[in-house]
Amino acid sequence: MKWNIFRLKKLDKDEENKLKKKIFEIIFEANTPYGRLFDLSLLLLIILSVALVILESVPTFNARYHTFLVVSEWLITILFTIEYLLRLYSVQKPLRYVFSFYGIIDLLSILPFYFGIFFPNSKYLSSIRILRLFRILRIFNLTGLTQNRNILLRSLQQSKDRIIVFLSFVILIVVVLGSFMYAIEKNHPESGFTSIPISIYWAVVTMTTVGYGDVAPVTGLGRFLASIIMILGYGIIAVPAGIMSQEIARASKENDHIPTNTDVCRYCGDNYHLDNSIYCKTCGHLLNP
Amino acid sequence: MKWNIFRLKKLDKDEENKLKKKIFEIIFEANTPYGRLFDLSLLLLIILSVALVILESVPTFNARYHTFLVVSEWLITILFTIEYLLRLYSVQKPLRYVFSFYGIIDLLSILPFYFGIFFPNSKYLSSIRILRLFRILRIFNLTGLTQNRNILLRSLQQSKDRIIVFLSFVILIVVVLGSFMYAIEKNHPESGFTSIPISIYWAVVTMTTVGYGDVAPVTGLGRFLASIIMILGYGIIAVPAGIMSQEIARASKENDHIPTNTDVCRYCGDNYHLDNSIYCKTCGHLLNP
Amino acid sequence: MKWNIFRLKKLDKDEENKLKKKIFEIIFEANTPYGRLFDLSLLLLIILSVALVILESVPTFNARYHTFLVVSEWLITILFTIEYLLRLYSVQKPLRYVFSFYGIIDLLSILPFYFGIFFPNSKYLSSIRILRLFRILRIFNLTGLTQNRNILLRSLQQSKDRIIVFLSFVILIVVVLGSFMYAIEKNHPESGFTSIPISIYWAVVTMTTVGYGDVAPVTGLGRFLASIIMILGYGIIAVPAGIMSQEIARASKENDHIPTNTDVCRYCGDNYHLDNSIYCKTCGHLLNP
Amino acid sequence: MKWNIFRLKKLDKDEENKLKKKIFEIIFEANTPYGRLFDLSLLLLIILSVALVILESVPTFNARYHTFLVVSEWLITILFTIEYLLRLYSVQKPLRYVFSFYGIIDLLSILPFYFGIFFPNSKYLSSIRILRLFRILRIFNLTGLTQNRNILLRSLQQSKDRIIVFLSFVILIVVVLGSFMYAIEKNHPESGFTSIPISIYWAVVTMTTVGYGDVAPVTGLGRFLASIIMILGYGIIAVPAGIMSQEIARASKENDHIPTNTDVCRYCGDNYHLDNSIYCKTCGHLLNP
Repeated sequence: MKWNIFRLKKLDKDEENKLKKKIFEIIFEANTPYGRLFDLSLLLLIILSVALVILESVPTFNARYHTFLVVSEWLITILFTIEYLLRLYSVQKPLRYVFSFYGIIDLLSILPFYFGIFFPNSKYLSSIRILRLFRILRIFNLTGLTQNRNILLRSLQQSKDRIIVFLSFVILIVVVLGSFMYAIEKNHPESGFTSIPISIYWAVVTMTTVGYGDVAPVTGLGRFLASIIMILGYGIIAVPAGIMSQEIARASKENDHIPTNTDVCRYCGDNYHLDNSIYCKTCGHLLNP
Repeated sequence: MKWNIFRLKKLDKDEENKLKKKIFEIIFEANTPYGRLFDLSLLLLIILSVALVILESVPTFNARYHTFLVVSEWLITILFTIEYLLRLYSVQKPLRYVFSFYGIIDLLSILPFYFGIFFPNSKYLSSIRILRLFRILRIFNLTGLTQNRNILLRSLQQSKDRIIVFLSFVILIVVVLGSFMYAIEKNHPESGFTSIPISIYWAVVTMTTVGYGDVAPVTGLGRFLASIIMILGYGIIAVPAGIMSQEIARASKENDHIPTNTDVCRYCGDNYHLDNSIYCKTCGHLLNP
Repeated sequence: MKWNIFRLKKLDKDEENKLKKKIFEIIFEANTPYGRLFDLSLLLLIILSVALVILESVPTFNARYHTFLVVSEWLITILFTIEYLLRLYSVQKPLRYVFSFYGIIDLLSILPFYFGIFFPNSKYLSSIRILRLFRILRIFNLTGLTQNRNILLRSLQQSKDRIIVFLSFVILIVVVLGSFMYAIEKNHPESGFTSIPISIYWAVVTMTTVGYGDVAPVTGLGRFLASIIMILGYGIIAVPAGIMSQEIARASKENDHIPTNTDVCRYCGDNYHLDNSIYCKTCGHLLNP
Repeated sequence: MKWNIFRLKKLDKDEENKLKKKIFEIIFEANTPYGRLFDLSLLLLIILSVALVILESVPTFNARYHTFLVVSEWLITILFTIEYLLRLYSVQKPLRYVFSFYGIIDLLSILPFYFGIFFPNSKYLSSIRILRLFRILRIFNLTGLTQNRNILLRSLQQSKDRIIVFLSFVILIVVVLGSFMYAIEKNHPESGFTSIPISIYWAVVTMTTVGYGDVAPVTGLGRFLASIIMILGYGIIAVPAGIMSQEIARASKENDHIPTNTDVCRYCGDNYHLDNSIYCKTCGHLLNP
């Protein structure tokens, strides 16, 4: 057994399966002592790593600790890469894992850093790895939070169709309004309406009531049209609020005490199953063989 | 039959009716293969055409591909014009079609471009043709979306009276507040309150919480009044949200499973009828004679 | 009778009462032909008068038509003054009228213009006369609108206590936050935090999500605190929306088909009574003696 | 008895307890004449004191009345300090009081001023003493307001878990979006995206629809991403509104007529007990021994 790290290929099927299972339990699951420890160190490593990326972007900080920042970011990224390869190795259906929600996030957490060798700016994209926290938060056993997360997610899912209708309507309307404002404000370059895409950007900024002011109408007609858009925007911003109010009320009434556990399917890596689940809800394999 | 394109006038009544009916089915309806094909190409043409208008407004793009953009826009507009004339020809009551919702949009989709010969800026208004997508989206048979669109539209319609009351109240209040702020800030031209219309524009920008900052009070009294307006605006922005919440909840409870189909009335061009409709709900003629 | 205009004092009690009653019916009521005509001309006069005030503030317009604007504003204000005196004369309890909601607005509609002789800016305040439209809108018999206005007003009234609690909380919080931001940003005058009142103004602008940007934090700590304030503001802006949603839902359920008429009490000038009212709800006198 | 102020230590146990009880009744309670008087003067003193701090920050005012402002602020702070020491003395469990909500606010009301000797800016933080008004407002016996405050507080408490889920989601998302925008806008310093922390600040300013405009994207890609963020922000801002709507509706339905009184526990200083309470809900001691 002592050489098995160097002769992984030569392990007989059974031994390899045992190893895979052990790695799987540590990396994917959270209900063994090692699994908890792994999740906790991953949690700290992710937060540390995002903090490093953020600090590197601050000029004064970067000037002082540049070498330290670069070295520790490389170290963490290599650790994450090893972790990703181990996940691939221990999952029974690696492709399913690769294209699952968390699989994609895991990959996106390490790719930007390697791309950073060629395109320096891309390394800042690696702060996307903070989304990995979603998976790890389960170790805190916050059933109250989990339930409420489920209510919010279900509300969003239930109102998906309405929100699509609403958003497509918003998109059509900002294209039309943006073009109109461009036609009106085109001859006043100080207004900032220098092209229709920028005018559409202005329409979005206005309809969502953000209102930066970097682009703003200066003509009387433009301001009149803008006022109408804003007052209409009143009604428009009320629509998603109304949709969500209704869905949250509905979701809260429904039985929201569905206990979930931290079991993870060994075949596709899907975590998030109901208590007492025997088969994975995604690929149908036994959860705890 | 081979000459009938050049001697349309000489077709006997019956042949002409057949031709009209065929054109009508292709252009207005979506449940024949040709109708679907027509809708699909119209869909692509509209998106392409709006994309061209948008791209033409971008200086760097326009400088490079000016001729290409102008020629293709002319081509598409001529196609749309032919389509409009065919719609007029095949509908039995052209006037009803002309003044229907979609009839007006169809006309507005081609007019700005021709006006563009005299007033160059007006051609950007032709992006209004993107609203024609509303009609074509039916080919995707998205019943879920259609139902939800109906719920949202019904909610808006039901709350129409309240929204009118609300908006008229908002209009009165911005006129009064705008005048007051003008009286206060008049002597500080750096604040931007240079006339009451601009002050009213400021009041709209503030009450809707857009807040560009191009016009903003600089005196102590002005800022105090503005603070009161904003805090009041808190309550005011809550009103449409409350109205919509209630109406969406009500509309969702009502039976919203009214199936609609893509039949179009041959007399007035009204599409949007319930399944099993025999007569047009707008003009009362048989739908499928 | 021919001298009665010049010897009003000498009219016997009975004749005077008849005259008063006639004037009252024309000016206050809307269900006689003359009353309707009076209301309609008042409506037009108010809109015209506010339009004149607005136009006078526009420099280019004022430069051209200054004399015309000034003369017509004087004429209209004198007409409004005569109307106010006639209202005072024909109402049986003038003091009650003077301190009623509409009595105060009627007075505020003419006062700013006379003050304008001494303080030129104050004449722009006379656009408050647009609020007089509230009373006149009854001539349109828009029962749908009236009902909905009642629902909205009742919702506001019902949620008055909660809104007071909410607003007092907001006021306390903006004072504290404004002071904190001043302490943080004081040494960076380019941020615009030059005194605590201005910082409080900033806190209001931020909490209401208006966000002009004329005052904005520049230090790291200031921006961090501002971010927390904004995210908290998320929850805070949701509170009035929640209150209004609930009240509008409740008010809509209640019987909102209370028909109102346009009778006006001859004693205190209160209009807004239920159908079949015999006594004024404010002063208890007979409505139609 | 005449020397007892100078020989407090020498008072026998019984006399001291009587004195403590008397001080306690005056300072903590509001249902004796002296207690009411104390609360009222404290109310005025707090408002006066915050007004002085605010006025001192206004340069023109401070230049004129500097000495007066400084002297009166010192006087008030010394009075508050004496009051705090008396509270500590008269409460039976001082530590409980020190770490209670109002105990912390009472301490924070005096500390910043003394720190102001070393760090001049810190004295502006003493406007936090305005939060002490929360305790004193009980003297007005505004049961309507108290009930509604309870409904709002209970709604907030009930929706606490959901709001935590929502806020943690918002925090994760602004970190990711901020980093992405930094990577996109990094090479255009005129946009203001000079580091990831500032980009995160921008993401918060945008998602909450505040939109100062001091930091705003200038590249096409940046503006496109910003538009998507804003439209997504539509849905996100609707979530807390939906949560609050539902909770306020639920809290309003529940029995909200729980009368509370102004009794204060002599042991831990907790005020806010139900009528007829015999034991303190926080420490379990008799309320009126």
